[in-house]
Amino acid sequence: MPSNELSISQSEHKDRIEKIRSQMRRKRIGALYLVNSTRILYATGFSHISTERPLALVIPRAGGLFFLAPQLEYDHIRSECKLADEVCTYPDYPGRTHPMRIFAKFLAQRGLGSVVIATDSPSGAAGGYGYRGPGLQDLMSKVRFVDGRDIVDGLRLVKSQEEIRLLRESARWSEIAHDILLENVRSGVHDTLVAIKSSYEALARMLKKLGQRYVQLRIALSPVVVGFRGQVGPGSAIPHAVYSKNKIRRGDVLVTEAGVEVAGYTSELERTLVVGKPSPRAKRYFEAMLKAQDAALHEFRPGVPCSRVDDAARRSVEASGLSSCLRHHTGHGIGLDGHEPPWLDPGDGTIMRRGMVFSCEPGLYVPGYAGFRHSDTIAITGRGMDFVTKYPRGLDELTV
Amino acid sequence: MPSNELSISQSEHKDRIEKIRSQMRRKRIGALYLVNSTRILYATGFSHISTERPLALVIPRAGGLFFLAPQLEYDHIRSECKLADEVCTYPDYPGRTHPMRIFAKFLAQRGLGSVVIATDSPSGAAGGYGYRGPGLQDLMSKVRFVDGRDIVDGLRLVKSQEEIRLLRESARWSEIAHDILLENVRSGVHDTLVAIKSSYEALARMLKKLGQRYVQLRIALSPVVVGFRGQVGPGSAIPHAVYSKNKIRRGDVLVTEAGVEVAGYTSELERTLVVGKPSPRAKRYFEAMLKAQDAALHEFRPGVPCSRVDDAARRSVEASGLSSCLRHHTGHGIGLDGHEPPWLDPGDGTIMRRGMVFSCEPGLYVPGYAGFRHSDTIAITGRGMDFVTKYPRGLDELTV
Repeated sequence: MPSNELSISQSEHKDRIEKIRSQMRRKRIGALYLVNSTRILYATGFSHISTERPLALVIPRAGGLFFLAPQLEYDHIRSECKLADEVCTYPDYPGRTHPMRIFAKFLAQRGLGSVVIATDSPSGAAGGYGYRGPGLQDLMSKVRFVDGRDIVDGLRLVKSQEEIRLLRESARWSEIAHDILLENVRSGVHDTLVAIKSSYEALARMLKKLGQRYVQLRIALSPVVVGFRGQVGPGSAIPHAVYSKNKIRRGDVLVTEAGVEVAGYTSELERTLVVGKPSPRAKRYFEAMLKAQDAALHEFRPGVPCSRVDDAARRSVEASGLSSCLRHHTGHGIGLDGHEPPWLDPGDGTIMRRGMVFSCEPGLYVPGYAGFRHSDTIAITGRGMDFVTKYPRGLDELTV
Repeated sequence: MPSNELSISQSEHKDRIEKIRSQMRRKRIGALYLVNSTRILYATGFSHISTERPLALVIPRAGGLFFLAPQLEYDHIRSECKLADEVCTYPDYPGRTHPMRIFAKFLAQRGLGSVVIATDSPSGAAGGYGYRGPGLQDLMSKVRFVDGRDIVDGLRLVKSQEEIRLLRESARWSEIAHDILLENVRSGVHDTLVAIKSSYEALARMLKKLGQRYVQLRIALSPVVVGFRGQVGPGSAIPHAVYSKNKIRRGDVLVTEAGVEVAGYTSELERTLVVGKPSPRAKRYFEAMLKAQDAALHEFRPGVPCSRVDDAARRSVEASGLSSCLRHHTGHGIGLDGHEPPWLDPGDGTIMRRGMVFSCEPGLYVPGYAGFRHSDTIAITGRGMDFVTKYPRGLDELTV
């Protein structure tokens, strides 16, 4: 487990475990059984590739933490997770004896055969890649299983100082990566090639500067991702585009994304670019989008419901006469996952608190023509808000 | 939807839907409700980014296919999925009215309010990124929900000629990417930088050759991934390593991975490399690993149970006196997912059939020192097997 200013400290992990246990005591829960890789990472700092092979972290109300895991993760857990006392392994999945039967037996041996177990998966497994098996809840009939997702996810709503520091470090490198992207983008090239080239150059610069202090925790070709994800010309009108068949052309509107993973945390920085002199049409949508983002930014402060931020952006778009261009709400919480609650949405009345971190990204979409969206990462402070991502937002700076 | 030799044809998708419906008729199922992005891709060719926003493909036993989706996917589905008649949308998640209530109402309007619905998620949602909501099964009390996963996954066990052609195309570019990796690897550099640089160069070559016939369907910085994923020196002893803190050094054993996504399909090519003159110790493990892979390869043919392949590799490792170095079984099915059933595992007696495709990758691991694993993609033919990945396996060719 890394231990420096680019990681979550051991003491913060211990604090998280204590906060989890305090909820368990209050709710009379005997153990928390987690399979989701993000929740396990949050609780322990241990990162793994979730596959068909069941793997669980068990936090008993008292006594040592332990893992239930495939044999191939044994050395990995032992070397990278100092918080766990023990790793109970099975040979492989599906195995002669199904792993879930081995898990049930081991839990019973640990005195957890007739308690209340809170979990994020009553089946006992993450269930990816064609996994099949008997449900843990069916193998342990004396256990009462209850939903344990919010025991961890509730803690994740408000970020600690360490978490915000990591998101700022992420943003710092995203800004550099975005500068590199702007230097590399031009008409006549395929956006995917610009993206991977720019990601490489930004990563090289980051690793040169940070050296061994930097440790990538999420599986990916690169912890630095900067590019367009298919949001090129008409493709930019598809918010969740995957790929563009067309090369970048003069006059295209492009929507970027820049994210750098630092200790599992990734901030979000997105910008709308115009290739060549912006047309009056592009200018109109761009300015309306910017106004909507400004209106939303104005509402970020402690004590305000999340829905009000969305409402402010929406009313701004209505005032611009462009309601028909809306396709999604204004933003989402952000931290270890790319999207997290709370949501900047009409249906989310969560009151914003200091330490919450959000994306702010109202978007306007014109099918067949273009999409217009900036995204910034915003932290709620004691009295207002602060940009985690600090990057030019005006059309002049974003014309390439 | 793409339509060329680099994609699954419209007629194959129609054939898949017909095979799905034939099972539905036999099992008296009124509709198949799918949320998993791979299953939706398999059935329709439509690829989307699965998030907290519920999205489902519904295949009624008769009548048109339709999607239930967030508004932001409307234009995306309409432009890329010709097989669907209709897209019922909700504004966003969580929304003033929860999307699942909108889905339940729409399903009832379509005459599916009191039928048997087969599904891969009775909750109605993929459930990622902090999604919460009422379960679809609780909102539709007159519907009987049954497990529908195998209706699709059963079809995926045996690959069609089109699928095998795409896996071969994937392998062809993986081999080129691996050559480029070998050219770029040297001591003193960080493996992640070699990986992303090599992936860029291979992607550039591929896009230059294939042009607009190539369409990336899975979200990723690059559809070409070639690198080491932290399997560097002692890190190579961790089969599911994520990242190496150390640069590549003379004497290191490295384990590579090369995969290129073509129409959603990715073959698997992995090699063990030695940097500099291999030590007698490295040679011993390398040769034992190669023997085990040869023993496994010998068993691939129609009519043989999957477990026998694993057994052959295991017995070879035992004969080499290295059983303590085993950490996992011999391989897995492969196709749209990186791992798929059937499994080359003692617990999987599935009989191999023509058209099944597997990874073959027995591995030996010595904690603190190194890991040794090749992986090849193997197709079962009418009378035996065929390499999908064609790449040198000997130590001489893999010393860099």
